[in-house]
Amino acid sequence: MLQKEQARNNIITKEMEQVAEKENVSSNFIKESIVKGTIVITKHNQRNIKPIGIGENLKIKINANIGTSPLHCDLNEELEKLKIAVKYGSDTVMDLSTGGNIDKIRQEILKQCQVPIGTVPIYQAIVDKGDILDVQENDFIKAIEKHCKDGVDFITVHCGVRQTAIPLLKSRIAGVVSRGGSFLVRWMNHHKKENPLYEQFDEILKIARKYDVTLSLGDGLRPGSIKDATDKAQLHELNVLGELTKRAWKQDVQVIVEGPGHVPLHEIEKNIKMQKQICHNAPFYVLGPLVTDIAPGYDHITGAIGGTLAAYYGADFLCYVTPSEHLRLPSIEDVKEGVIASKIAAHAADIARGIKGADERDIELSKARKDLDWEKQIKLSLDPEKAASYRKSSKINDKECTMCGKYCVFEQK
Amino acid sequence: MLQKEQARNNIITKEMEQVAEKENVSSNFIKESIVKGTIVITKHNQRNIKPIGIGENLKIKINANIGTSPLHCDLNEELEKLKIAVKYGSDTVMDLSTGGNIDKIRQEILKQCQVPIGTVPIYQAIVDKGDILDVQENDFIKAIEKHCKDGVDFITVHCGVRQTAIPLLKSRIAGVVSRGGSFLVRWMNHHKKENPLYEQFDEILKIARKYDVTLSLGDGLRPGSIKDATDKAQLHELNVLGELTKRAWKQDVQVIVEGPGHVPLHEIEKNIKMQKQICHNAPFYVLGPLVTDIAPGYDHITGAIGGTLAAYYGADFLCYVTPSEHLRLPSIEDVKEGVIASKIAAHAADIARGIKGADERDIELSKARKDLDWEKQIKLSLDPEKAASYRKSSKINDKECTMCGKYCVFEQK
Repeated sequence: MLQKEQARNNIITKEMEQVAEKENVSSNFIKESIVKGTIVITKHNQRNIKPIGIGENLKIKINANIGTSPLHCDLNEELEKLKIAVKYGSDTVMDLSTGGNIDKIRQEILKQCQVPIGTVPIYQAIVDKGDILDVQENDFIKAIEKHCKDGVDFITVHCGVRQTAIPLLKSRIAGVVSRGGSFLVRWMNHHKKENPLYEQFDEILKIARKYDVTLSLGDGLRPGSIKDATDKAQLHELNVLGELTKRAWKQDVQVIVEGPGHVPLHEIEKNIKMQKQICHNAPFYVLGPLVTDIAPGYDHITGAIGGTLAAYYGADFLCYVTPSEHLRLPSIEDVKEGVIASKIAAHAADIARGIKGADERDIELSKARKDLDWEKQIKLSLDPEKAASYRKSSKINDKECTMCGKYCVFEQK
Repeated sequence: MLQKEQARNNIITKEMEQVAEKENVSSNFIKESIVKGTIVITKHNQRNIKPIGIGENLKIKINANIGTSPLHCDLNEELEKLKIAVKYGSDTVMDLSTGGNIDKIRQEILKQCQVPIGTVPIYQAIVDKGDILDVQENDFIKAIEKHCKDGVDFITVHCGVRQTAIPLLKSRIAGVVSRGGSFLVRWMNHHKKENPLYEQFDEILKIARKYDVTLSLGDGLRPGSIKDATDKAQLHELNVLGELTKRAWKQDVQVIVEGPGHVPLHEIEKNIKMQKQICHNAPFYVLGPLVTDIAPGYDHITGAIGGTLAAYYGADFLCYVTPSEHLRLPSIEDVKEGVIASKIAAHAADIARGIKGADERDIELSKARKDLDWEKQIKLSLDPEKAASYRKSSKINDKECTMCGKYCVFEQK
C-alpha cells in the first residue's frame, strides 16, 4: 500500500514514525498531513533509505542537483559530488545527467546514496533519441517507467506546460529557462500537439502508484529573469499544476510542486502564497529564487537570499544554486558552496519560523564563542574544516585571533 | 557653512547637486532631506572627494571595514584591501586599524582614497595608551579631534552606551560584542563613571561642526547572538541614540545611526521600524545583520541575507561582513567576497524598493544571456573576472557551456 493510502486508512507506517521522530512532532500529525497532502515522504517503496518528510511545519529541506552533461561527463566526479552534497547536509539529491551512460550513472548514484534521489526522466528520452523532435509520446512514459523501476524516490514531470501558455511567453525577456520546459515547448511547437506529459498524466500516475514515487510537478515555464517573474505564463502553468495536484491525490500519489526561479525580493511572499493557495497547500519546492540577475559566479548567494525569504513565507524545499549557475556545470567545490549557502537559508528560515529547537545550535555556538572555546565553536560550525583553516591562519595563542588581538571583546572584563 | 546649515538656509550646495545627479533625483529633494535629517552627505569640508548621499529613497550604500590589528599589521596589505573594496563597489571604507602606526595608516588611506572614509577614534585613544583603563576622559576627545583634523568624513562614536544599560546585559548569551562598546563598558565599570563620550557629547559636536564630519552613532550594545537580538540593553541604547540624534541636528551636525548585528530574520522588520521611529528617520547603518550564528566562514552570506531584508525594510547603509568574521582579520580575498555579497544585498533591495532604473542592468544581462552573448553577460556581471574564468573553464564553442551542452535552453528553437 502507498504511504498516502495507508495514511488515509489511518495507518501509521514505519516511515511516518521515523519522520515524526526526526522532526520532533507526533506521528499522528505526519499521518494527517500526508492525508491532506501538506507533507510528503519521498521514498520509493522498494528502496532501503532513511525516509524524510517535506512540507508544512517541518524543517526546511534542501536538494542538490548533480549529474553529467554532454560536454562534461565523469562518473567518479559525480559520485564525489554526491558524497560532498550529503556530507554538508543536502537532504535529497537529484541526478540530472544528460551525458555519457546515464543509466549506469543513475544506478550507481542510487546504489551509493542513502538520501532520497530524484531525476527528470524526460532527459532520458531525449538523450536516448539524440533530439527532442525524435522523441515519441510513448518514449516519455517508457523513460518514467525506467527511472521508477530503477528505484528513484521522486521525479520531476513538467506536466503543466500547456499549448495555451505558449503565446503568453512572447513578452518575456529570457523566454523558457527550464530545460524540461524548453524541450517540451519545442516539441509542442514542432508537432503542433498538446504536452504529452499532460496528455498522459494518468499513465504517469499509474507508474508512480506502482513504486510510491513522489511526483515533483515541474515548473517548465518558471521565469529566467527577475523581469519575467510572476507573469502570465508562469501563472498559467501554476493553475494547471493545481489541477494536477488534485488528480494525483485522488490516486494517492504524493505531490510536490516546483516553483521559480528568478524573483525580485518584493514578489517572493506573493509567489509563495499564490502557490499554496492554487496548489491546495502541497509542499512547495523552489529553485533559488534568485533576487537579482547580475551576479553570475555568486548565484549561491542570490539564491540563499531568495531561498531564506521563500522558506520563511512557506516554501518547504529549497533547490540549491551553485556559484557556477549560468556559467558551467558545477565543480565539486561549487556543489559544496551551493549546499552550504542553501543550508544557511534553510536554517535561518527554520529559526524565523519558530521551529522548535532550531536555534539551539546557534545558542551553543554563541556560548562557545563568548568563552573563546575555539574547538567547540568550530565543531558546531556548518563547515568545521573551513572554520578550522581560518582559525589556524589566525592563531597566535589559545584565546585571541588576528581580528582584534589583545583588544578581543571577550577579554574586556 | 555646514551642509545641513546651508540646506536649512535653502542653499543647494555643489555636493547636493552632485548627489542629486548621481541618484537621479532633484537637488531640492536632497536639500529638503538633509534639513529633515533623513539623508546625509558624508564629506569632510576640506576633503576633495566625490560626495555620496546616504538615506531615505536613495540607492542603498555599502561600507567595507579594513585596518590592521595588533596581531596582523601590514600597511601595503591594507592599501590593497582599500583598492579591492572600492573596485568592487564599496561606497565608503572604514579604517579600523588598531595595530602598528595607526596615524600613518589612516593618513595613507585618506590620501589614496576617493570614497568617504570613516574611523572609530576611540581606538586611537586606546592604542596610544595601551590599555582602556589608562585612557582619560580628555583622551577620547583628543583622538576625535585628531581624526577629524586628518580629514575623515565620518566617525563612529559610541555615545549611547550608558551606565543604566549595563545591568541589562546580564541576561545575554554573548555579552558585548562591539569593540568600542566593550572598551567603554569596561572603563565605566572600573571607574564607576558615566560614558565619557555621552558626557562630552557637546564637545564632540563642536569638533564635528568644525569639519562637517558626519557622526555615526555607534551601537556599542548590539546583540552578538541571534538570541540576544532586540533585548532591553539594545533598546536602551537605541533610545539614547534617538535623543543624541536630535541634539546633533540642533547643531547642524549630520547623523547616521548604527544598528545590529545578529538578528533572526523575523525580527529584522521590527528592528528597522523601531530605529526609524526612535531616531526620527535618521539614516540607519546596519552591520549584517546576521540571521544565524552557525556559519563562521560564510558570514558574508548570512549577512547578505539579513542585509537585503534590512535594506528592503528601510535600512540605508550596509556594513559588509566577510567570510573571516569571527575567525580572523579579513584577507584581501575576504574583502572582495564581503563587498560583493554586500553589493548583491544592496542591489536586490534597490530593485525590491522600486528605485528607478535599479533593474536595468538585470534586464540587459538577461537579454545577453538569452542571446548567448557571453562577452556582454560577463561585462555586466558584478565580478567580470570570476564570471570570465568560469566561462573559460566551460567554453567548448561560442555558444554552449558545460552545464547543458547541446541541450542549452536558449538553443531549443
